[in-house]
Amino acid sequence: MTNKINITLSATKKEKPNADQLEFGRTFTDHMFIMDYSAAKGWYDPRIVPYEPISLSPSTMVFHYGQTVFEGLKAYRSSEDKVLLFRPDKNMHRLNLSNDRLCIPQIDEEFVIEALKELVSIDKEWIPTAEGTSLYIRPFIIPTEYYLGVAPSKYYRFMIILSPVGSYYKEGIHPVKIFVENQYVRAVDGGTGKAKTGGNYASSLKAQEEAEKRGYSQVLWLDGVEKKYIEEVGSMNIFFKINGEVITPSLNGSILEGVTRNSILHLLKHWNVPVSERKLSMEDVYNAYKEGLLEEAFGTGTAAVISPIGELFYNEENIVLNNGETGELTKKLYDTLTGIQTGNHEDVFNWVVEVN
Amino acid sequence: MTNKINITLSATKKEKPNADQLEFGRTFTDHMFIMDYSAAKGWYDPRIVPYEPISLSPSTMVFHYGQTVFEGLKAYRSSEDKVLLFRPDKNMHRLNLSNDRLCIPQIDEEFVIEALKELVSIDKEWIPTAEGTSLYIRPFIIPTEYYLGVAPSKYYRFMIILSPVGSYYKEGIHPVKIFVENQYVRAVDGGTGKAKTGGNYASSLKAQEEAEKRGYSQVLWLDGVEKKYIEEVGSMNIFFKINGEVITPSLNGSILEGVTRNSILHLLKHWNVPVSERKLSMEDVYNAYKEGLLEEAFGTGTAAVISPIGELFYNEENIVLNNGETGELTKKLYDTLTGIQTGNHEDVFNWVVEVN
Ligand SMILES: Cc1ncc(COP(=O)(O)O)c(C=O)c1O
Ligand SMILES: Cc1ncc(COP(=O)(O)O)c(C=O)c1O
Repeated sequence: MTNKINITLSATKKEKPNADQLEFGRTFTDHMFIMDYSAAKGWYDPRIVPYEPISLSPSTMVFHYGQTVFEGLKAYRSSEDKVLLFRPDKNMHRLNLSNDRLCIPQIDEEFVIEALKELVSIDKEWIPTAEGTSLYIRPFIIPTEYYLGVAPSKYYRFMIILSPVGSYYKEGIHPVKIFVENQYVRAVDGGTGKAKTGGNYASSLKAQEEAEKRGYSQVLWLDGVEKKYIEEVGSMNIFFKINGEVITPSLNGSILEGVTRNSILHLLKHWNVPVSERKLSMEDVYNAYKEGLLEEAFGTGTAAVISPIGELFYNEENIVLNNGETGELTKKLYDTLTGIQTGNHEDVFNWVVEVN
Repeated sequence: MTNKINITLSATKKEKPNADQLEFGRTFTDHMFIMDYSAAKGWYDPRIVPYEPISLSPSTMVFHYGQTVFEGLKAYRSSEDKVLLFRPDKNMHRLNLSNDRLCIPQIDEEFVIEALKELVSIDKEWIPTAEGTSLYIRPFIIPTEYYLGVAPSKYYRFMIILSPVGSYYKEGIHPVKIFVENQYVRAVDGGTGKAKTGGNYASSLKAQEEAEKRGYSQVLWLDGVEKKYIEEVGSMNIFFKINGEVITPSLNGSILEGVTRNSILHLLKHWNVPVSERKLSMEDVYNAYKEGLLEEAFGTGTAAVISPIGELFYNEENIVLNNGETGELTKKLYDTLTGIQTGNHEDVFNWVVEVN
C-alpha cells in the first residue's frame, strides 16, 4: 500500500448544530476516511471524501454474519484552540486485537492514526468548544464480500466518521442507577467479550431494554459461567472503592480493556491510592455494603469518561452508595482525566496527542 | 400496513449460471423483496424490485452494533415442474423468535410467506433442476437508523434475496471430519445462541479457521459453561446413534432449533426408532465409542440437509465412526428427507408447500 491519502473536499459545507442541541451520534461532519482491503492488494486506496451514503449489494457479508469491529475515541479543542486526541494508539491497538478475534486483517496502526489526524484536521471547525463537548471519532471495519457462506470475508472496508457530541452530563456530573443482570449474559471466556464487535452490543440490547423499563440506566454484567463475578457495565468498565482500596475486575478474557480503565489505574497508582485488578464477586460487594465498607463505585468509558454509580439493584435489593451522591475520589478522577483530555491539567503520562 | 405488494419488474434479465458451475451464495436472481419499518408506520411499503445495491449512510446501525437476524430455506423444482418450499412457516416463526431476542419488531409470518412465494414465483426460472440443486432463500432484517448510540434501532429493513445453489455433495453424499472445539465458545445460556443473528456466526469464524487449518471441515461446539456437553456443529444440529438409540442435544437455550432437526425427530418417531433429546456429554460419546456402541453420527441443516460424520477429533484422539462411511440410518434419513423436499417421496407430515 502507498501511504498517500487522496483527498476530495466537499463542495458544500453542512450547517453545524448549536452546542446546546448536540446529541450523541446523530450529526456527522463533512468528510470521512475510507480504505479498502483485498487479499491481493492489502489495505489500499486510502482516501478522505465527502461524508455520503455507501452503496452495497444486499448479499454483502456485513448484512448477514456480523463480522464487524469498531472503536470510539474523542478529539477535544483546548482553551488555546489546540486540537487534542487522547491516547489514540490504545484504540488502534485494540482495533487490531478485535481484528484478530474476528479474522479481519490487521491494519497499520501508525498510518491509521495519521489518517485520523488528517481527517480531524480537515473537519476541525466541527469540534465544539463548550465545556464537556467534543468530537466523537468512530473508526470501524465492515466485511464487503458478496457471499452468503459462513467464512471470513475476502474484502473489507475501513472507515472513520466524526460526530460532534454534547456534554454527557447536561447538569454536571451525577450518579446513575445500575441494574445487576441475573438472567442475560453478555460474554463468556472463549467468546468475543474482549473484542469490540457488533454482536456483543446486539446481545446486550434486551437486558438493557428491560433494565430501562424498571428505571435503571444501565446493566451490570456478571460472568457467563457462574453468574457471580462482576464483569462490566453496558459500555463501561467498573470500579469499586471498598474500605480504602479501589478494585476493578481483572482482564479475564470476556471484558473489554477500556482505555479509560487503563488510564484510571495509572492515575490511582500515581496518587498512591491502593488499587487492585482482581476477580470480584457481587456477593463480596454486597457484604462490603452490609458492613458499611462500600465507599464509592463508578463506571469508566470514552462517552461519559467517569460515571458515578449512586445505586445498584441486586437480588431484589437496592444498594445505595455514598447516599446516592458522587464520591470524592470519583469526582477527583473525573476532574483530573477530563482536565488532561482538554489540555487544562498537566499531562503527566504524555497521553495527549496534538493534531496540527 | 396494507398487504399489497408493489411489483417493479427488472427491465433486463441476468444470465443464469450453468448447473455445474453453481456455488453456494454467490449468484443472485433478478428480483428481491423489501419492506421497511418505522414505529409510526409499522412494516410498510412491501415491494418486489430489481436486485440491486442498497445505499446506506455510514452511521447506519447495521455497520456498528450487529442488530441483525436472518433465515435460510430452499425452494425445489419437482420432476413435474412444481415449485416446492419446505416448512417455510417454521423459518418465519424462528425469525420472530430471533427478532424478540434482538429487540427487532415482529413480522407478520403469514404475510411474509406470501411475499416469499410471490418473489420465488417471479424468479422461478432461476430454480435449477439438476439433482441436489435448489434455490436458496435468504430472508434477513437489518437496523437502518442513522445513530451511534447503543440502543435498539427505531427503523429496520426486511429483505428476501434468492440464490440458485449447486449440490452440496458434488460426488454423492459423503462423511465429513469434525473438530471438537475445546478453546472457543459459540454461545452460552442467557446469550443469543438460540437466535439466528450475525454475531453468533462472527464469533465462530476463528475456531472454524483453525479447525480447517488442521484438516477438519467444521467445529463441534461444547457448552460455554463446563465445555463438556455437546451443543451443535457450525451451521448444523447434531445427532448420534448409540447402541440403537438416536440422541440429539435438547434445546437448552444456547443452540438453534433447526427445522431439519425437528423434521428428523418426526421421521424417527414415525419409524419407531428409539430417539431422545437430552443433555449429552462428549465424554459419553467417547465412552460409547470405546465400548463399540457408537454406531452413526450426522449433522442436520438446510444447506446439506444431512451430513454424515466420519471422524471426530477429540482430546488429541480420532474417533472414527462406522469406518468413516455413511451410516445406514443416516442414508435413509437423507434419502427420505430430500425425497419429501423435492416431491419424490410421500409427504406424510404435510411439510411441503407449493408455490403457484
Ligand atoms: C463493552 C465496553 N466496555 C468498556 C468500555 C470502555 O472502554 P473505553 O474506556 O476505551 O471507552 C466500552 C466503551 O468503549 C465498551 O463498549
Ligand atoms: C447455528 C445453526 N445451527 C443449526 C442449523 C440448522 O438449522 P436448519 O435445519 O433450520 O437449517 C443452522 C442452519 O440454519 C445454524 O446456523
